[in-house]
Amino acid sequence: MAKELGLTKLAIPTNGNAGAALAAYSSRAGLQSYAFCPEDTPEVNVREIAMQGAATFRVNGLINDCGKIVREGQPHMDWFDISTLKEPYRIEGKKTMGLELCEQYQWQLPDVILYPTGGGTGLIGMWKAFAELEAIGWIGSKRPRMIAVQAEGCAPIVKAFDAGDRHAALWQNASTRAAGIRVPVAIGDFLILDAVRQSQGFACSVSDEDIELAQGELASREGLLLCPEGAATVAALIQEINTGRIGKDESVLLFNCATGLKYEMPESQSHLDITHPIDYTSLAHE
Amino acid sequence: MAKELGLTKLAIPTNGNAGAALAAYSSRAGLQSYAFCPEDTPEVNVREIAMQGAATFRVNGLINDCGKIVREGQPHMDWFDISTLKEPYRIEGKKTMGLELCEQYQWQLPDVILYPTGGGTGLIGMWKAFAELEAIGWIGSKRPRMIAVQAEGCAPIVKAFDAGDRHAALWQNASTRAAGIRVPVAIGDFLILDAVRQSQGFACSVSDEDIELAQGELASREGLLLCPEGAATVAALIQEINTGRIGKDESVLLFNCATGLKYEMPESQSHLDITHPIDYTSLAHE
Repeated sequence: MAKELGLTKLAIPTNGNAGAALAAYSSRAGLQSYAFCPEDTPEVNVREIAMQGAATFRVNGLINDCGKIVREGQPHMDWFDISTLKEPYRIEGKKTMGLELCEQYQWQLPDVILYPTGGGTGLIGMWKAFAELEAIGWIGSKRPRMIAVQAEGCAPIVKAFDAGDRHAALWQNASTRAAGIRVPVAIGDFLILDAVRQSQGFACSVSDEDIELAQGELASREGLLLCPEGAATVAALIQEINTGRIGKDESVLLFNCATGLKYEMPESQSHLDITHPIDYTSLAHE
Repeated sequence: MAKELGLTKLAIPTNGNAGAALAAYSSRAGLQSYAFCPEDTPEVNVREIAMQGAATFRVNGLINDCGKIVREGQPHMDWFDISTLKEPYRIEGKKTMGLELCEQYQWQLPDVILYPTGGGTGLIGMWKAFAELEAIGWIGSKRPRMIAVQAEGCAPIVKAFDAGDRHAALWQNASTRAAGIRVPVAIGDFLILDAVRQSQGFACSVSDEDIELAQGELASREGLLLCPEGAATVAALIQEINTGRIGKDESVLLFNCATGLKYEMPESQSHLDITHPIDYTSLAHE
């Protein structure tokens, strides 16, 4: 759409994946892209964005500081601002998540959806898709309970939900290993909160320790290497089954948003020396 | 199949991706897996394998040394050897590459296939799939020219092809950044060479410099982040169009075998300091 509308320079504040997607599509379409990343964005994300052709900058601030750079640089650089919810097509694109899950559930919906929530565009997009699918008669009025999952170190939506507020205040000193959901202030906060409330859902947060534990368990038991943001939904599911807010008999859908390969994985330190005889029985795995 | 046949412990020598796949599927199926990696296997691959539940060991040798450990450890550990071509189902699985490309080409075949060749199972599997598809009447007798692409630092198949040999000698001091095709001796060497020759194809090698260049170009121009093994086929295509061995009007299929995220990417060093006014025009990208 950006190309069709005659844009040539696209700029984005990004914690990683959105920037990588913008860089890849812009390069493919022959457009210039600019990405601004908080300085603690994982190295692999920054390199991926740069390698895919975007002018890429680390910024000594958080995602909202990066957004400010894009806004303030616009008049100087003739950038188009691709920030979350600053243009219409991103949210239209995110509707795909809702459309595809409906298709895969054969035009039924799960009882519960757990969504790792930073900017929340996926959750908002799904909610819009469900309404449109009902309007055209492809699904009924049943809605999943939408659960916004955040990290304890950055949980503005959870705080606003619990307080009954419609807007979420800036979260101070946001910190979590799950960089993709380290969004201290979401432009679409009220849209997220509206969807969560209308669906009879809730917002909850999980600790980085529980995220890491869930990530390791899913990998070693199921062979699924989730990113920490995706693993946060697993941690939340376990937590909320324990609190009783999610029933054991409910059909639950978890969203994962990237491969775990993009994040630092634990070291693996077992060496074998072939210049000496190997004691094979010492290799036995539990 | 391993589970259905009652196996419980699977062992593999691996430069990375095969081990990660074995670990993931074994964990999912409730089987134990053991992976032996050359010590210079990229860190991310080793960690991925370990995280997905395999007992993972770095070995001070190459992939063939790792294979020897699996063979010699078998009687002690009751391992089943999942090495390339040591069991029937791996090659049957690799046929999928041939079946899917036929389907995607609507039961035609491309003129040329460039395949990054280490153990060569994919090439052998495709060749088998084509024969079977012809036997059941789904495709005709036309075959793509099969091109085995290797790295200059480890090109035993190229050497054997050029010499007219049916077997490839062990390549001494194998070295290339494209770890997945750093296979100094391939068990299926004669099967690779047979397929290449029967198809009127050839084997060729490319330098690590050309691989890196191709990888960077594809990423920044097309937004496709290939692994070095996949990028080797791009480098080979450019090289062989120049030599005239591939025609500019031929339909050519390149195989990529992993995401570039698994490998070290170039650093990206641009920083922005938000505690000072930003000179936006200095950010201009070419």
